[in-house]
Order: sequence, then C-alpha cells, then structure tokens
Amino acid sequence: MNDNKVSFTPIQDIGFRNLIERISSMFEKHGQGLIFGIGDDAAVLDKETDKLVFKSQSYQEGVHFDLVYTPLQHLGYKVASLAVSDVVAMNARPKFITINLGLTNKISVEMTELFYKGVKAACDEFSLQLTGGDFVPAGSAISVSVSCIGTSEQPVYRSGAKEGDAICVTGDLGAATCGLMILLREKKHWESLGGETMKPDFEEFSYVVEKQLVPKARLDLINSFSQNLVTPHAMIDITKGLNHNLLDLCNASGVGARIYEAAIPVLPETRAAADELEEDIDKFILFGGEDAQLLFTLPEKEVERFAKAFKDFVVIGKVVNKDEGVKMQTAEGSIMTLHY
Amino acid sequence: MNDNKVSFTPIQDIGFRNLIERISSMFEKHGQGLIFGIGDDAAVLDKETDKLVFKSQSYQEGVHFDLVYTPLQHLGYKVASLAVSDVVAMNARPKFITINLGLTNKISVEMTELFYKGVKAACDEFSLQLTGGDFVPAGSAISVSVSCIGTSEQPVYRSGAKEGDAICVTGDLGAATCGLMILLREKKHWESLGGETMKPDFEEFSYVVEKQLVPKARLDLINSFSQNLVTPHAMIDITKGLNHNLLDLCNASGVGARIYEAAIPVLPETRAAADELEEDIDKFILFGGEDAQLLFTLPEKEVERFAKAFKDFVVIGKVVNKDEGVKMQTAEGSIMTLHY
Repeated sequence: MNDNKVSFTPIQDIGFRNLIERISSMFEKHGQGLIFGIGDDAAVLDKETDKLVFKSQSYQEGVHFDLVYTPLQHLGYKVASLAVSDVVAMNARPKFITINLGLTNKISVEMTELFYKGVKAACDEFSLQLTGGDFVPAGSAISVSVSCIGTSEQPVYRSGAKEGDAICVTGDLGAATCGLMILLREKKHWESLGGETMKPDFEEFSYVVEKQLVPKARLDLINSFSQNLVTPHAMIDITKGLNHNLLDLCNASGVGARIYEAAIPVLPETRAAADELEEDIDKFILFGGEDAQLLFTLPEKEVERFAKAFKDFVVIGKVVNKDEGVKMQTAEGSIMTLHY
Repeated sequence: MNDNKVSFTPIQDIGFRNLIERISSMFEKHGQGLIFGIGDDAAVLDKETDKLVFKSQSYQEGVHFDLVYTPLQHLGYKVASLAVSDVVAMNARPKFITINLGLTNKISVEMTELFYKGVKAACDEFSLQLTGGDFVPAGSAISVSVSCIGTSEQPVYRSGAKEGDAICVTGDLGAATCGLMILLREKKHWESLGGETMKPDFEEFSYVVEKQLVPKARLDLINSFSQNLVTPHAMIDITKGLNHNLLDLCNASGVGARIYEAAIPVLPETRAAADELEEDIDKFILFGGEDAQLLFTLPEKEVERFAKAFKDFVVIGKVVNKDEGVKMQTAEGSIMTLHY
C-alpha cells in the first residue's frame, strides 16, 4: 500500500518510448522459446511441438478494480495471475504474456513501474515471459488488457466430464469475494473520514484481502497432474463463482451434478470475515468469483491415488446424468437446484 | 456510415453471454490449426512447426478513433487489419486473433455486431480465425484490445538491414493521414452546422478517407516473398510515419540510410486532398502514420527479379554506413537529416 510514498514523474516528462525501455529493462528472459521479445513489430516464439493455448482478457478501472484499495503492484500481479489461471484451466503451462495499458494522467512513471513489478513477480513465479504490449493514453479510467499463450501436451476442456466422475475443487472458496467486501466497506469508512493522505488499513482481514488482491493461479495442480500422469476429464477455473462455473462445465459436458455444501472447502478466516460483515457465507461460496481455484472432474478410481500426490484439493460431489440436473445438498440436508 | 440506421438494443437487454453467442455465430472456422475456439477458458491451437509471431495492441475512443466519422464496421476491420500488419511486418502469416472490447452504454447490440462484421471482413480477407476475447463494461470511452498470432518459416526483424541494401516501400504513403485531416475538418464543419441526424459526407475524398478508415495490411507482399523465395533483410510496417519507422529500422540495424523524396510513392488523390487542405504534402508523407504499408530492405541484386513478380513497391533509397546518418535528398536537391 505504498503507491503514494514514491515520487511522481509524469509520463509525458519521459515519453512512452523511454517508459517502454525502463519497463523492458526490468524483465529478463524466462521462456526457452522466446526468440525476440519487446522492441520489434511483434514477438517471435520458437516452434512448438505441444498444442498452444491462447487467451486474452481485459479489465477497466472503476469496473474491475479500484485504485483506492488496490496497490498497482498487486494489480499487475493479479491480471497476470488471472491470465495464467485461464491457461492452466486448459491443463497448459503459461509461456508468454503481453500487456496493453491504457494510462490516465493520474498515473506516473513510478506507478507504472510498480504495476510491472507486480507483473514481474507473477512472471517469476509462473516461469512466464513478458513478450510485448503497449502503452496508450486513456481518457478517465485505466484499462488493462492481457494476452497469454501457454502450451499443453494434452489440453483439458470444460466439456469432457463423464457420469460417475468425482467433482473436485482446489484450495478454498469464497475468500476473494469476502476480501472485496471488506475492502469496499473499509473504503467507505475511510472516505467518510474524509481520508486523503492515508490509505485504508486491512491488517485484521489479511487472508481474505490477500486472496482478493493477489490471487494465485494453480499452476501447481497442473504440474502435479503431469508428474503423476493424471489427466482430468474436464476443468474450468472458478472466476465467476462455483455456481456459475459448475453450470458452465455441466452444460458444456452435457451432464448433471450433485454437490454437497458441507464438502465445499472454506477456511475459518473466510467464515470469520463473513461473520464480521454479517453476510451469509454461502453467498460468497456459490456466487463469489475471482478465487482463481480450479474445478475439475476425475474418474472416481483416480482420486485416491492423486490425493496422495497432491494435497490441496477436495471432492465436493459427483457427475450424474443430465436428467438429474445440477443440484446441491445443503448443510441442512435439503436439495436445491443450481441455476445461473 | 449507416450506424444510425439500425435499431438500438441495449446490451443489458440481452446480456454479455447472449452477445457472445450472437457474435460467435457470425464466425466460421478458418484456421486449419484451430482445435477449440470461443467458449472455453482459452482457445487451443494445434502444434506448429513454424515459428510463432505474437502481437497485441490497444485503441481508445477519443485517442485513436472518433465514432462521429468512424463507422463501427470500419473500426472492426481496421483494428484487425493493423494487427495483421504487425504480424506480416515480421514476414509471418496471421492465423489467430482475439479481441477484447470495453463497451460503453452508448453501444448497442447492433453496433457491436457491426463492429464484428468489420472484424469478420478482415478475417475473411486475411484467412484469420477469431479465437476469443471478451466484453467488459467501460466507463466513458470504448477501448479495443487486439492480439494476433501468426506463423513464419523465416521471421524478418527490423534489425537485419545491411549496407548496400535497397530501401523499398509498398503502395503509397500519406493517404491515411490526409484522410484523417479531411475527416477532422468535415467533422468540425458538420458540428458547426449543429449536425445531429446526418453524419458528415466525404464522397469527394473517398480514396484518402478509405485509407484512413479501412487500411489494408500487406499480406500480399508476404505471400509474394514466399512464392518467389525472397527474404528481405529487414522489415517494419509504416504506422508511425516513414521518418519514424525508417529511423527505428536504421537504429535497430546499426546502419544509416539515404532516401530520395522524389522517389517516395504518393498518389495524385493524396496530393489533391493535401492541396484542398492547404497543407504541405511532405508532412503527411514523412510524419503521417497508419498507412499500414511496409518498409523493407532487399539486397540490390534481388530487386529487379522481385519487381517482376510483385508490382506494388518502389525503391526509395539505399542503406549506407551508420556514420553517414539517416538523410533524405529533397525534391529540390538539398539534403536533410531525419530525426525523431
């Protein structure tokens, strides 16, 4: 939260050309496959014997993020990590990323560098190579557009789930949305105090706030699949909420599902934050997005073996016939049908 | 210019999910290599034995385009064509494209479809496959972000120019900027009349206006290189103006250049428009961008043979030693040094 402690050099003082040079110098080469990166008309990547996975996504200030409570460094990490998340959701390893930034007058050279410090942290963590992108002047709101290329020997689609499969989820759910609610509440409180010089403080809820600000893509799951020669039947990342993404997976696969609310992984920290907010935790779990966890289906018989190798997932239900619909048994034992 | 003749369905009436379905249905599969396109976490492309070229670029309403004089259909074509232009400038063939759109409340379902009609025209023309992208709500201005992947057996960089090479340019220069000036003038005139219902009319200057609104990437040059087994030493697309892009190429290659103003290709239509604007045509030629023509260098001895196969280029000068600088002999015979 130290964006406002650094000096402020307006970008026009150095120009986009120099800004690109300063940012480029922050990045070393990661990818074996990169032949030529930033600085030509386009990046050139070496020939690939694996299949390619290609994804792009964009974010708008005021719609997807708020700079009052989002340090730029975290924003840089988050947009890169979410791009990685989409690539790993195809059972692919991220290789190359480009980022286009629409910058407003409020953004200085130092702030841009902070953003790319976050991008670099993600690149280091996920062995990812920044291969290009551009800066353009934007009107009133920052826009960020991210493209990521990955490679996979065996891509996994959301459409492959089979009756009898176990439905699995990595990590824990609901934290990112809980974190967002805390951030919004603290922002309101801070604004009501007329806060100008200090930014809001979220120490007490650091777990859920961190999940919102710096969600970590589950590349570890993909690596473990590969090491253990396990290929899930279907996979999707949970960015729109378990409810939405489970329905997407079931619809694409032409199957139904039965999940158990009691089995959905939620941490005590998330429950405590929901209590503090006087909100129903179930809402966050089912409808809260941005957790960047993975939802996947495995043949029943593979679950036990894989669970010995990879600890951070649980089974929350099973794939059933399409006619049985997509339903959840609540903690109280009643059955509810899920819909968009 | 028929944007305002169509009906206006607010996007919230059908939702982003349905909008994506409507747009997806407009596109057939082009690329041989596409395994799975729109509709999963990411697109999957088949393994590639050629090298990959990867480029992303973004555009902001009010900065890069103005909807008063830019029909959305043309905008869709243009952003796709300019992405293709960057890919062909690496001597690569475009294969896959993703487009992220930040949409404002002013934009209807029908307007979005018009935009994609333009994208589709470019996809058809350049044998390009739309593989994904997203829609996000934007605040006050539309933002467009485009990523394009191409493949090349032999990528050409801006850094390969050698002393003695002929400096070549495709098509003609200055028209796109001339077109922009006409559009801006007509917009001003139209606004001064309080124009509400009618859009400005540019019939008289259709050539330069077309070059501004629907610039065509020079994929034909790349195809001809390939058919004739010609590989240029260096190449760059002219998007920032001949002056800027020639300096970029010379700096990257560590060479100087001598070009001849009289040899630079300019059409009578462009001269006429410049006269009408009472502007110096040289300014448009040297500093006007967005022509989407290609600047490349060829060994002197290859020029004659290639000129028999490909008609639409001219030699405008030659590559010289770095110490001689980057200079232009004007039509009057004086020598001027080019700088950024």
